[in-house]
Amino acid sequence: MANTDCVNVRVFSLNCWGIHYLSKHCSQRYQMIGEMLCKEQHDIVLLQEVWSEKDFLYLKVKLASTHPHSHYFKSGVIGSGLAIFAKHRIHDTFLYRYSLNGYPYMAHHGDWFGGKAVGMAILNIAGLTANVYVTHLHAEYSREKDSYLSHRVVQAWELQQFIRHTSTGADVVIVGGDLNMHPQDLGCRLLMSYTGLKDSYIETAKFDGCENGMTLIADNLFISKNELIPFEKGIRIDYILFKGSSTTKIYCDFMSTTKGSVPGHPLPYSDHEALTAELRLESHVPAQAGSDKTQDSPTEKLAELVDTLTEARTEVKVGLHCAERMRYTSARTGVMGLALLVLELAIAAVPCFALGAEQPFPRISFYLLAALCFAILLTTFLLYIFYTMELKSLQGAEDQMRLAVGSLQEKLRGFPVAQPHDAPQKSPEGQQPSALDSEE
Amino acid sequence: MANTDCVNVRVFSLNCWGIHYLSKHCSQRYQMIGEMLCKEQHDIVLLQEVWSEKDFLYLKVKLASTHPHSHYFKSGVIGSGLAIFAKHRIHDTFLYRYSLNGYPYMAHHGDWFGGKAVGMAILNIAGLTANVYVTHLHAEYSREKDSYLSHRVVQAWELQQFIRHTSTGADVVIVGGDLNMHPQDLGCRLLMSYTGLKDSYIETAKFDGCENGMTLIADNLFISKNELIPFEKGIRIDYILFKGSSTTKIYCDFMSTTKGSVPGHPLPYSDHEALTAELRLESHVPAQAGSDKTQDSPTEKLAELVDTLTEARTEVKVGLHCAERMRYTSARTGVMGLALLVLELAIAAVPCFALGAEQPFPRISFYLLAALCFAILLTTFLLYIFYTMELKSLQGAEDQMRLAVGSLQEKLRGFPVAQPHDAPQKSPEGQQPSALDSEE
Repeated sequence: MANTDCVNVRVFSLNCWGIHYLSKHCSQRYQMIGEMLCKEQHDIVLLQEVWSEKDFLYLKVKLASTHPHSHYFKSGVIGSGLAIFAKHRIHDTFLYRYSLNGYPYMAHHGDWFGGKAVGMAILNIAGLTANVYVTHLHAEYSREKDSYLSHRVVQAWELQQFIRHTSTGADVVIVGGDLNMHPQDLGCRLLMSYTGLKDSYIETAKFDGCENGMTLIADNLFISKNELIPFEKGIRIDYILFKGSSTTKIYCDFMSTTKGSVPGHPLPYSDHEALTAELRLESHVPAQAGSDKTQDSPTEKLAELVDTLTEARTEVKVGLHCAERMRYTSARTGVMGLALLVLELAIAAVPCFALGAEQPFPRISFYLLAALCFAILLTTFLLYIFYTMELKSLQGAEDQMRLAVGSLQEKLRGFPVAQPHDAPQKSPEGQQPSALDSEE
Repeated sequence: MANTDCVNVRVFSLNCWGIHYLSKHCSQRYQMIGEMLCKEQHDIVLLQEVWSEKDFLYLKVKLASTHPHSHYFKSGVIGSGLAIFAKHRIHDTFLYRYSLNGYPYMAHHGDWFGGKAVGMAILNIAGLTANVYVTHLHAEYSREKDSYLSHRVVQAWELQQFIRHTSTGADVVIVGGDLNMHPQDLGCRLLMSYTGLKDSYIETAKFDGCENGMTLIADNLFISKNELIPFEKGIRIDYILFKGSSTTKIYCDFMSTTKGSVPGHPLPYSDHEALTAELRLESHVPAQAGSDKTQDSPTEKLAELVDTLTEARTEVKVGLHCAERMRYTSARTGVMGLALLVLELAIAAVPCFALGAEQPFPRISFYLLAALCFAILLTTFLLYIFYTMELKSLQGAEDQMRLAVGSLQEKLRGFPVAQPHDAPQKSPEGQQPSALDSEE
């Protein structure tokens, strides 16, 4: 290949578990992480759960000479926790906040306050445009009864939308982060099949690390065995994904993970294992004018994508029904609170009309009951608003998925794209104007 | 031009003012809008403030034969109010919710509940990929004392980011909506100069409509003169914008606006005037392989963009300080509420220790005061969380702007893109690891 340039890019990804006062040995671990990054000099470092901006600034100072370019993505109440450090100039950044991210009253899970998002940075690597994404999806607290599944599926859906729509002009796409999903989980399949991203653990020529590429392992000091049940040895939920383009090919030559405690230290870097992927970019001088870089997928891949999408729609619908029920419950509770208040006021009002009558119940109880009614009304009002927002987001994602399935099925049937100018009545959508309702 | 194809595309945009029970003659106006759209048969119809999904479904049924393809964008508590109807197949959609959008307790302004956003639809028009955007930014309630200016600037910033990053693969870009900004307002300049979008009112070969292209006019039945002060005749805040690519040129042959009441009807369609632009797309067979469709801007345009960005940063910083002050105030009020509660409990506890002493104050006052303290604590807690989220979003936007200014200034200085492999110490960012703080 005479007209081919070759560039090696080392990518690092780690969930830093940086909750001060809650995560163990936080400062000490950041020191270890900083030293290791200084030494290893990866081209691109993608960090998650850097909850404190102070820790980001600490790393920024530490890595000033090895990684002069960096960005910290802010969102939500606490922040997105996402950070990127790079040897190469960051030309542009963009943040997409997921529309759903848990519940504010599940404060002990804390995801809502974190404002989970996907951050994008556009880098120039040896003349190639690299779109680099870092993200962290909603945690899975119970595999059996995962009440956040629909939220995570919507997050995966929005992640693939964001990557797909923003990476059209890129020569290479690199995604790193804690997806909180196993490789065969619905959200993972949705992401991979829609974007065409490849998993560096699957693609790598050589691998050195935990069994099955696991990133949350029982051998890690900070992991309690109970958390992993029913997976004794561990699970794989952190990823480095990549994709080339019509002008640039990308390969993974080597991939590694840490294996619990760091050699020479008593501690691991985090409760997650760190990933490193050595990618090789081969850029070709474009032979033909490729205006659209997304090549058409073969039929079986399309069919698979339709299946995955249908499954995702089902999951979102389950979440929808759940949110509808919760909203209904909060509305009903609110109405009961209101009825109680009205009843109380009515009873209290009786002595006013029937002068001389005895006060029906003591004043203290009266005020306590009134305060309770107000508290119920306020809480249910806030919950009602929250569930309405959740419903809208779920419905929005479901609508977009339905549209996408329709578009894919049309492609699959091999029909040419409909020309509504000539035959608008042929479109099935045109005949079902109330499809939004009928499909519920 | 032998190898040039020509396509005409008629685009319509209207803020429908669809607040049932609050907007006047809502149903009657939707009927008028539906009939007009049926008759006019625009290629693309972009609607804002379609707050009720029922109205969207009404239009969907009405336009089933003329506009078989449609999408309603959902977000926030009420919805985004954004809808698109098209003659051409919609292949894909994507919604970006602005990170800032007013305050929930400013319920009479209602913007927060609306969940303002920008919706994107990818259409195929005669073989060309058209990225169509519809949006509605936060309203301006007072020109002199615009407390939402920083929110609107951040929305404009996110709008340009979204359009720029998602339209790389598009042959043409069409944006329609109610920007709630005058043509020379900061947000408008930011949007236009960064994306290279052109204003159809400025670019059109022929125009028929209100003076100066105004879209909120004194002659509209639904507009009270007081709203428009100090602009007697009206203002221009609705736009249809467009942009071509290296392979497709786009021109505006004709543009029109409605002029208040509709001929033959006693009413206008809305409190805003409707816009129609007749665009002409000329697609060329690509002569050279254009991998990057965004051509480099000339120096003066870059310098102008840097100025606009700097101004925007200043505005965002003003908003930042304001949010910081508000958060501080709510924290202080919360602490005062807590102190009051502690004081009250202490006074109430005295008789328990000094047995036989008189109860210091009546029970009713005690419970009322306690309830007040709790109300203060809850309110200030919620406000504190809200202002923290606002702060994060403002800081995030400011960070991204700073990065963008840096990147543009480097381009402007004519330096080649830095190669940090060779000389990382040359980068000015590398020398200022605490830039985040120092620039505040």
